Amino acid sequence: MNKLLLPQDIVGGSFWLISVAMIGAAIFFFLERGRLSSRWATVMNLVGVIALMSSIHYFYAKNLWVLNGQAPIALRYIDWLLTFPLTILTFYVMLNSVTDIKRGMFWRLLVGIVGWLYIIGELYMGDTGRKNASCGNESVQMAFFANRLIITIGFSIYHIGYFIEHLAGGANINSLNVIYNLADFLNKIIFGMIIYSAAIQDTRKGT
Amino acid sequence: MNKLLLPQDIVGGSFWLISVAMIGAAIFFFLERGRLSSRWATVMNLVGVIALMSSIHYFYAKNLWVLNGQAPIALRYIDWLLTFPLTILTFYVMLNSVTDIKRGMFWRLLVGIVGWLYIIGELYMGDTGRKNASCGNESVQMAFFANRLIITIGFSIYHIGYFIEHLAGGANINSLNVIYNLADFLNKIIFGMIIYSAAIQDTRKGT
Amino acid sequence: MNKLLLPQDIVGGSFWLISVAMIGAAIFFFLERGRLSSRWATVMNLVGVIALMSSIHYFYAKNLWVLNGQAPIALRYIDWLLTFPLTILTFYVMLNSVTDIKRGMFWRLLVGIVGWLYIIGELYMGDTGRKNASCGNESVQMAFFANRLIITIGFSIYHIGYFIEHLAGGANINSLNVIYNLADFLNKIIFGMIIYSAAIQDTRKGT
Amino acid sequence: MNKLLLPQDIVGGSFWLISVAMIGAAIFFFLERGRLSSRWATVMNLVGVIALMSSIHYFYAKNLWVLNGQAPIALRYIDWLLTFPLTILTFYVMLNSVTDIKRGMFWRLLVGIVGWLYIIGELYMGDTGRKNASCGNESVQMAFFANRLIITIGFSIYHIGYFIEHLAGGANINSLNVIYNLADFLNKIIFGMIIYSAAIQDTRKGT
Amino acid sequence: MNKLLLPQDIVGGSFWLISVAMIGAAIFFFLERGRLSSRWATVMNLVGVIALMSSIHYFYAKNLWVLNGQAPIALRYIDWLLTFPLTILTFYVMLNSVTDIKRGMFWRLLVGIVGWLYIIGELYMGDTGRKNASCGNESVQMAFFANRLIITIGFSIYHIGYFIEHLAGGANINSLNVIYNLADFLNKIIFGMIIYSAAIQDTRKGT
Repeated sequence: MNKLLLPQDIVGGSFWLISVAMIGAAIFFFLERGRLSSRWATVMNLVGVIALMSSIHYFYAKNLWVLNGQAPIALRYIDWLLTFPLTILTFYVMLNSVTDIKRGMFWRLLVGIVGWLYIIGELYMGDTGRKNASCGNESVQMAFFANRLIITIGFSIYHIGYFIEHLAGGANINSLNVIYNLADFLNKIIFGMIIYSAAIQDTRKGT
Repeated sequence: MNKLLLPQDIVGGSFWLISVAMIGAAIFFFLERGRLSSRWATVMNLVGVIALMSSIHYFYAKNLWVLNGQAPIALRYIDWLLTFPLTILTFYVMLNSVTDIKRGMFWRLLVGIVGWLYIIGELYMGDTGRKNASCGNESVQMAFFANRLIITIGFSIYHIGYFIEHLAGGANINSLNVIYNLADFLNKIIFGMIIYSAAIQDTRKGT
Repeated sequence: MNKLLLPQDIVGGSFWLISVAMIGAAIFFFLERGRLSSRWATVMNLVGVIALMSSIHYFYAKNLWVLNGQAPIALRYIDWLLTFPLTILTFYVMLNSVTDIKRGMFWRLLVGIVGWLYIIGELYMGDTGRKNASCGNESVQMAFFANRLIITIGFSIYHIGYFIEHLAGGANINSLNVIYNLADFLNKIIFGMIIYSAAIQDTRKGT
Repeated sequence: MNKLLLPQDIVGGSFWLISVAMIGAAIFFFLERGRLSSRWATVMNLVGVIALMSSIHYFYAKNLWVLNGQAPIALRYIDWLLTFPLTILTFYVMLNSVTDIKRGMFWRLLVGIVGWLYIIGELYMGDTGRKNASCGNESVQMAFFANRLIITIGFSIYHIGYFIEHLAGGANINSLNVIYNLADFLNKIIFGMIIYSAAIQDTRKGT
Repeated sequence: MNKLLLPQDIVGGSFWLISVAMIGAAIFFFLERGRLSSRWATVMNLVGVIALMSSIHYFYAKNLWVLNGQAPIALRYIDWLLTFPLTILTFYVMLNSVTDIKRGMFWRLLVGIVGWLYIIGELYMGDTGRKNASCGNESVQMAFFANRLIITIGFSIYHIGYFIEHLAGGANINSLNVIYNLADFLNKIIFGMIIYSAAIQDTRKGT
């Protein structure tokens, strides 16, 4: 905890930055929740809990990095194991709060997490996509559209990272960490911010 | 705290995962509480407090495991001593909030915790079961039914674990820890989630 | 913090158990407060603050015990110095919120803490007892009656403990610690629980 | 953090006691705030924030004392630098919420902190005193009167302490610490409690 | 954490002071938020989150300084990277809540952060300035005017600091740290306080 983080340590710096950003994002989502239309409350809670749980992992990861200079890959896997299903759940709850979505689809989304391409497919062409297209709520559609893009790009970063790490020789552990941190920033904080701005617009229309 | 958790350390990883999951679950239960019909408030508070107290134990257990590589069995016993009566209390409060249950039954449930088979019996065939069958609230019945199953399976895991540990030679302390962690995940987080989804459905009907 | 707590260490285990129980109780009291009739709010806040302050002392006591194997007697005295007046204050506020109690009695109760027998006498035969008997609120009477008993028994434990410690040779520091922990559990958590259940009944009648 | 605090260590004990008392007071002020008439909200927030910031300093001071046996005089100065202006601000806001006070007076009070006698003079004979005498709100007058006394006595303790420390040879650092701790207890917790009880009385009249 | 902070250590003392001040400010902004007119809620949340995230950085910076006597320049860069865009966002949200501001301006402000002179220009002469001049809400205009000044002076401190550090030989690292701490105090706490007092005045007019 008390070692010096050097300015040129980009990896350690990005761990630091994201850990604090996650806490800030979580608190912001929780505080703003009360101002939004009540049907967005659970979505905002989920997005906040994802950011909070991630911040715990990032604080430990940052400490380990500064002390040992090692990439805490185990913490990443635990974090993803916890936050990926919650991200999918967030998607499901957001759609469910405006349309009558079938219960089975949630499980397809959850299973779908194993095969990432399946999620993309589901989001672009499956029932979720169709339900969204017909849900008639512009704010949800906007959030859906933006986050589908985020997940497509953001999740592909993990896959590219995994490919580099395991197949291409794992050339540079440092750049890999920065890439993963960027993906987490995109998939958690920006993802949450897009949902938040959709909620804000939806709430304003309602009042 | 600052030792490296290795990716192949399944036991340490499961301690980590559950400690963060417990915190996330506790905060989620507390935040969602306000949105639910007021008669579910105490039940949600209890479920959240159980998860929060368990998260404290798991954070310490995780630290001890990473530092010493030893199973912190004493922490488990303390955790169970605190959370088992609260789980039973949660059951009782949930039923009590919709039916006029006799005060004596709570004590029978609490005593019943010593003899686990007795609980199962009480839940399946005793007054609690009958009261539930006649309470006329579908959401409570659903939660009751699902949690009766969870407790039957989840609590049996502790008993199987105890049998392995003390009678069958305690062959593998690692797999035992993973089994116990799984049981806690089932009996605390999934248990809470089922109550939460029953509360959500009950609240929607009411509005 | 990172030493191993052994399962056979009853004293350390009871420190652990009570520290977590105090946190759980404090959070439960704070969360339930909003659901109760508003005149119970200050009483619930006081009971929660007592549990919270005690939990801080118990966490430190537990750490010291695990590291040094020594009874942190100084922490106990500090804890009692803070929480005893607050316990008396809680009593006073509870009665005051339903009857017009004389201001002087609070000071008599507070002074009374020095001479414990005086408190017992005050509670059983003095103005507080009479006021309570005539306050006409059944829930307050129930809480008053139960807590008078708790304080009679619970506080006597401290006195017995003090007697053993200073006069009877202080035979066994371990059993003394367990006894004190039990007294704190009784005088703080069970005390608060009784007030809470009285508040619940009073609130239900009001609605 | 893990050294043993000895029962005969009065200085360390008083650091401990006040650090926990400050936390308890801060949480109590924050929780009770919602029950009071809305014009007391900012005053209660200020009083709570003062106690909370002070508790952080006292926790560190206590740790330093137990580890080094040294009086952390730097922490005291930092604490006073932060909490003195806020105490004056609290006074100003309390009066401002019931009378139309001139903006310039706040600055006079703030500057006045440098010359302590000036504050006393201002409180007893200046505009603040006159405004208070004519504000017609009995609760504010009571709080004003009691806190003027507290500040007169409480702040004089700091001055006596400073005199002993720098001019009279600083004879006994231990008794000095106890004196300062007592002054902080008086100027922060008792100060807040008096405001709180005035707020309670004012709120009851309003309802 | 447990080293002694010496009274003559001005740099360490200013780290300490600001870390606690940031926490106090954050909690104060969050608590007061509920009392203000609802359109100020997001602005207050942002100002509170900025102070909270900064307090985390300052607590670490303070620890590093006391232990190593080194200026944790990396933490500063990370803090600025997080809090500068949020400061600009706060400006934008504040204006947006009273006028219909164009979405493009936010990006201009954000880009503008790279070229500090550009921000000043934008604030004084650009669309933001004009919108503000015509927004017809006196409180917003007051906050806008005061914070434009703060940002002009406060941000220029960073630039002067940067100039000294990198171009003028970095003569004295200690005075540089004190200067940066002062700038953060100005740009975060005083900035937030000005917005808060504008919000208070706006809320009073509305009621």
